[in-house]
Amino acid sequence: MRLQLCAWPEVEEYLKTRGEIIVPIGSTEQHGPTGLIGTDALTAEMVAEGVGAATGTLVGPVINVGMAVHHTQFPGTITLRPSTMIAYIQDYVNTLAGYGFQRFFFINGHGGNVATTNAAFYEIYAGYTATAGAGAQRSNRPEPRCTLANWWECDEVKSASRDMFGGREGSHATPSEVAMTWYKFPEHIKTAPLDPPLPPSGRFFGAADYRRRFADGRIGSDPSLATPEKGKRIYEAAVEGMIAAFKTFAAAA
Amino acid sequence: MRLQLCAWPEVEEYLKTRGEIIVPIGSTEQHGPTGLIGTDALTAEMVAEGVGAATGTLVGPVINVGMAVHHTQFPGTITLRPSTMIAYIQDYVNTLAGYGFQRFFFINGHGGNVATTNAAFYEIYAGYTATAGAGAQRSNRPEPRCTLANWWECDEVKSASRDMFGGREGSHATPSEVAMTWYKFPEHIKTAPLDPPLPPSGRFFGAADYRRRFADGRIGSDPSLATPEKGKRIYEAAVEGMIAAFKTFAAAA
Amino acid sequence: MRLQLCAWPEVEEYLKTRGEIIVPIGSTEQHGPTGLIGTDALTAEMVAEGVGAATGTLVGPVINVGMAVHHTQFPGTITLRPSTMIAYIQDYVNTLAGYGFQRFFFINGHGGNVATTNAAFYEIYAGYTATAGAGAQRSNRPEPRCTLANWWECDEVKSASRDMFGGREGSHATPSEVAMTWYKFPEHIKTAPLDPPLPPSGRFFGAADYRRRFADGRIGSDPSLATPEKGKRIYEAAVEGMIAAFKTFAAAA
Amino acid sequence: MRLQLCAWPEVEEYLKTRGEIIVPIGSTEQHGPTGLIGTDALTAEMVAEGVGAATGTLVGPVINVGMAVHHTQFPGTITLRPSTMIAYIQDYVNTLAGYGFQRFFFINGHGGNVATTNAAFYEIYAGYTATAGAGAQRSNRPEPRCTLANWWECDEVKSASRDMFGGREGSHATPSEVAMTWYKFPEHIKTAPLDPPLPPSGRFFGAADYRRRFADGRIGSDPSLATPEKGKRIYEAAVEGMIAAFKTFAAAA
Amino acid sequence: MRLQLCAWPEVEEYLKTRGEIIVPIGSTEQHGPTGLIGTDALTAEMVAEGVGAATGTLVGPVINVGMAVHHTQFPGTITLRPSTMIAYIQDYVNTLAGYGFQRFFFINGHGGNVATTNAAFYEIYAGYTATAGAGAQRSNRPEPRCTLANWWECDEVKSASRDMFGGREGSHATPSEVAMTWYKFPEHIKTAPLDPPLPPSGRFFGAADYRRRFADGRIGSDPSLATPEKGKRIYEAAVEGMIAAFKTFAAAA
Amino acid sequence: MRLQLCAWPEVEEYLKTRGEIIVPIGSTEQHGPTGLIGTDALTAEMVAEGVGAATGTLVGPVINVGMAVHHTQFPGTITLRPSTMIAYIQDYVNTLAGYGFQRFFFINGHGGNVATTNAAFYEIYAGYTATAGAGAQRSNRPEPRCTLANWWECDEVKSASRDMFGGREGSHATPSEVAMTWYKFPEHIKTAPLDPPLPPSGRFFGAADYRRRFADGRIGSDPSLATPEKGKRIYEAAVEGMIAAFKTFAAAA
Repeated sequence: MRLQLCAWPEVEEYLKTRGEIIVPIGSTEQHGPTGLIGTDALTAEMVAEGVGAATGTLVGPVINVGMAVHHTQFPGTITLRPSTMIAYIQDYVNTLAGYGFQRFFFINGHGGNVATTNAAFYEIYAGYTATAGAGAQRSNRPEPRCTLANWWECDEVKSASRDMFGGREGSHATPSEVAMTWYKFPEHIKTAPLDPPLPPSGRFFGAADYRRRFADGRIGSDPSLATPEKGKRIYEAAVEGMIAAFKTFAAAA
Repeated sequence: MRLQLCAWPEVEEYLKTRGEIIVPIGSTEQHGPTGLIGTDALTAEMVAEGVGAATGTLVGPVINVGMAVHHTQFPGTITLRPSTMIAYIQDYVNTLAGYGFQRFFFINGHGGNVATTNAAFYEIYAGYTATAGAGAQRSNRPEPRCTLANWWECDEVKSASRDMFGGREGSHATPSEVAMTWYKFPEHIKTAPLDPPLPPSGRFFGAADYRRRFADGRIGSDPSLATPEKGKRIYEAAVEGMIAAFKTFAAAA
Repeated sequence: MRLQLCAWPEVEEYLKTRGEIIVPIGSTEQHGPTGLIGTDALTAEMVAEGVGAATGTLVGPVINVGMAVHHTQFPGTITLRPSTMIAYIQDYVNTLAGYGFQRFFFINGHGGNVATTNAAFYEIYAGYTATAGAGAQRSNRPEPRCTLANWWECDEVKSASRDMFGGREGSHATPSEVAMTWYKFPEHIKTAPLDPPLPPSGRFFGAADYRRRFADGRIGSDPSLATPEKGKRIYEAAVEGMIAAFKTFAAAA
Repeated sequence: MRLQLCAWPEVEEYLKTRGEIIVPIGSTEQHGPTGLIGTDALTAEMVAEGVGAATGTLVGPVINVGMAVHHTQFPGTITLRPSTMIAYIQDYVNTLAGYGFQRFFFINGHGGNVATTNAAFYEIYAGYTATAGAGAQRSNRPEPRCTLANWWECDEVKSASRDMFGGREGSHATPSEVAMTWYKFPEHIKTAPLDPPLPPSGRFFGAADYRRRFADGRIGSDPSLATPEKGKRIYEAAVEGMIAAFKTFAAAA
Repeated sequence: MRLQLCAWPEVEEYLKTRGEIIVPIGSTEQHGPTGLIGTDALTAEMVAEGVGAATGTLVGPVINVGMAVHHTQFPGTITLRPSTMIAYIQDYVNTLAGYGFQRFFFINGHGGNVATTNAAFYEIYAGYTATAGAGAQRSNRPEPRCTLANWWECDEVKSASRDMFGGREGSHATPSEVAMTWYKFPEHIKTAPLDPPLPPSGRFFGAADYRRRFADGRIGSDPSLATPEKGKRIYEAAVEGMIAAFKTFAAAA
Repeated sequence: MRLQLCAWPEVEEYLKTRGEIIVPIGSTEQHGPTGLIGTDALTAEMVAEGVGAATGTLVGPVINVGMAVHHTQFPGTITLRPSTMIAYIQDYVNTLAGYGFQRFFFINGHGGNVATTNAAFYEIYAGYTATAGAGAQRSNRPEPRCTLANWWECDEVKSASRDMFGGREGSHATPSEVAMTWYKFPEHIKTAPLDPPLPPSGRFFGAADYRRRFADGRIGSDPSLATPEKGKRIYEAAVEGMIAAFKTFAAAA
């Protein structure tokens, strides 16, 4: 049910009975010495397709570049400025809302996207109020609903991670996310020294600050624990958790 | 220590030994039938001044209009679009960073500001990376650090609220925030029917959706429990909690 | 009648018979060695509240950061870029216009705001024309009216200033404005050498140019003449002058 | 000395000894039943070329569309939104400043441009301060200087107008400006009923308000008094006045 | 039929039977050692006026500054950033579309404008879709149509150029365009060494790259072949070609 | 060599000897009754990966939503406004340029992207000129080079298409592009009536105009001729053509 793999009359048909769409959103950013730069987009897309397949819901094209300013001292990271990302999400949602899509379920693979994506949702809602100028309030189109669900935060994933990785999950370049990409792309499993095995945790500010604190890019994580098999388990937990969240969102009054 | 009440040579002097500034940030939005429209800005400002006085830290002018799109079907609410608010915070911080202010501690009175304010911080940090264009990377000014602390989320306030309001605190137009404004502005205590006494809770999306769900503007709160005395207790708890958070932020490596 | 101190049903009630709102607008910028950085916002707010009280008119939250680019070589000044300020005023007015506010009377404390604020008014009006895009012309909301009144330019203030300060009023960090803040905040009266007692006057361009010409920030003014008592007289003159201007604006066909 | 009629090596040569440029700025907007829509741009350009010729100063291409939102209920008017006009002037000045142009003398033909053009100047100056972001303060290019001179406000023009048109000059579609275009374009002299001969004066707000007050577009003016001969006199007065203003600007420390 | 030389009632009358307008669009940029900096705007305007006269069509004010980023290492060039130019064209077209202008025929004098102008057209069209936000789709104004025609690309001009200049036409500072300006402004014919007589051709990227490749600004052209007489022939060919293109555009279903 | 499948130290290593990156850029838009909505992104990505593999060049994440305003009356199309797309490409390129990527080879799958993408390139180049403000010219980073290559326009593809589809290729929802997606996604081959078999060709303007002219979305194309085998041939031709174009770009002085 990838939107990209439909023809437009199929979408027209879908909209006769459905108003939901799933939007995978990730990032293109360093994930430590062994994690893939595309991890956040690849995992979001995997999970989104799993949820789409299980629930018969259309899945829009992945938003593969996100808000990764703090990772930009590691070559290969790409970031949008928050203001650019807001405009991007606004156009993405507004175009689809024009056809009758009403509920946008974003499945997110990157913590750094949370603030900006939520800001974008309110930029969209503002378009339905007087704040947007004289014309807006006359619209007879109802406001769309947008929500963001982080796949790594559902109970199913937390439990599986705790079980397999315990205190070595960390918060960036985690064994969970690395494992999930290795499950999907086994030919891209990488090995490299992880020194120290368990790097420091903690908060950070801009890009220079991040690099100074987290020398190889990891935050409190030990991705050497990742295996494709564990990745499969995390993936399945994430899909299960996101299905539940999606159903709640879709059914809400 | 309000910046507005200093003369510029005092600021020059301050910067010889200090690099922190506290920024109160709130909103102008409905707070139910009895809460003040300015609640979030007034409480943020009160707490910020308390923290500034206790720690000898400058307090910048309050950001009194915030991100309140979802409240715009209640007359009197004013909102910025998230994109406007990002530009505003960017200018506020960048100007001060030009003099040598390095750590910006935002004391926040409004949950709706969280996402947009954090997005703004990364828009600022982006200005120190290649993303901002050719000139940015040559700067020899260090990145500033910005953080946002919600006064109502510190343990001190949570504990006092639980003690006094139990399950009737809710999440908008709460007795805690209403009480704090009544402590400060006893001549503006209002009475009006609250029907039902305890309104529904739950999440919401845009402005029309909000109004439909929360008819008088409150979310799960019973502000009839507010009194000036309880407001004093909440205020003192908030100042205490924010002092601790500020000190941690200011002292961090 | 501060909007911030109302509850939303009071605003709803107000709008049944009234469509005016007063908006104090100032700046956060150096005012010489003895003037408060917040002078322009503080005086605008004082006068606005005086006019609001006398005429029973709502007063919106103060716009306390303005267009002060030329003061940014004096630590403590904060400025918005004109483009940011236009977006800010646009959102402020458009949100309120959505409820039925129709006449916006800005009471201004800072000469540097005049051009940008007037530009903002036309950005708002443009939202009611074809220039704003396809949707705008279908609005059935009437255009709001916005006007800007500089409190220091009314005859009442000019006369009082001439009387008390003669040729030593100058045009920035004036004894009039300094006196008014001392009347309001007597605990923040400052003393510092003013050398020379009467600094040069003249025009200026950007921030570097301003600093080069006006070494301590004053332009042609001698704020050593300020006293709280004189401040009271200026304040009362300003309120009187602004009441007259407001009434003309509110009554116009 | 029109920039458009130079080859680039001539500009390179000019910059060895000179740093000034004159920029004519006008508008494309209704000027009553008999005035040309291009009046403000055409007169600004005429005067600018006169001043350029007399002082050996380069004259940039005319900015022929300006801020005319309030005229947009009269067919043929074109307007920029203020935010667009600010970006336009910013690019115009910044590009030229990159070659070493340092003083920009705008000769203005339209009152509606004043606020937005001055806002644009400060948007440019802001680019030389910390407000513009991390990179800006490292520039070793000095700030340019920009000023705006309204040709109709110099004493020379005021005196000639008073002499010829007395109380029938008005403030839009004036006999002075209409006469100046007829002097330049005698083949485009138009006749049409002017009813009433002397229309009302007064202030206005947005486009709908303007049209309601000023039915044929004129404000307090009687352009039936215009003749090509009188236009020549106004033109010569304007050039004389602007030469003086330019010289003061160019010579200032 | 220049819009600037009409009074507004003439435009109102025109719109009763016509919906087309011609918009000349050029640039202010170096054209080699002997070509005029205004070449692209001057030629576009000449051709536009010729087409307007022949077809009885209104001609809007020339857009005389365009997208010339790559020429900005030659003093005298002015450029808009593409984003500024898009906003400018959007405002220009949207204002006129508000009166009923429906077909916008841009006659272009500068290859560098093509991409940005076409992008601007789609920014305008987007204003009539859901992408522009909630209000847009309710418009009952039909979408305007915009097209861009490069005068130098019509068969008539290509043939005349081939005939007179053969392989020495090149692609910037061409004898065709230089000749056309000399036909119009014979008093501004310039002479300067052209060394080598035939400079290199080829593609380029940014401004530094352009200057490095094309030392005196020309690309593959020998403007020493230009004469006013040849300019007249090119001009007439361009007008003829553009009349045909305009008629096709105006007549299309 | 997908950037998304590298770890950051691999990118660091790559940049020691290489400065090129390939960027696939497509669209999410209707492709007639049988073509996939993702056709343009999917084909661009396929070809980019083929070129990357053959030349050992990194391939960035696909830009899968492009400029498709004119397709927005067919459900499922998503579009960016040109201004959003410019900001997006700017951030994408600028971030990577910060690490030392110098040559950006965009492989494009959608004609509608051409203008906006080229405009974006000049917005990027403008960042290296005075137009971008005071800081820009001090950069010691060289300008990056960006180019856009349309895979369907190389001789190899044109020849294969002519051979297989003759006059039935058309210009949107072409058998070539449809075949290529069927070669890649054989499980998504669709059948639907194509009526008429060969729809009209011709130009178009905005979205409403497009839909009126091209009822089922195709322009002059007969995608019933598509087969996976023909898709393989087109794909291989496209890769071959793009390899040649890439090599020329990478090798240029």
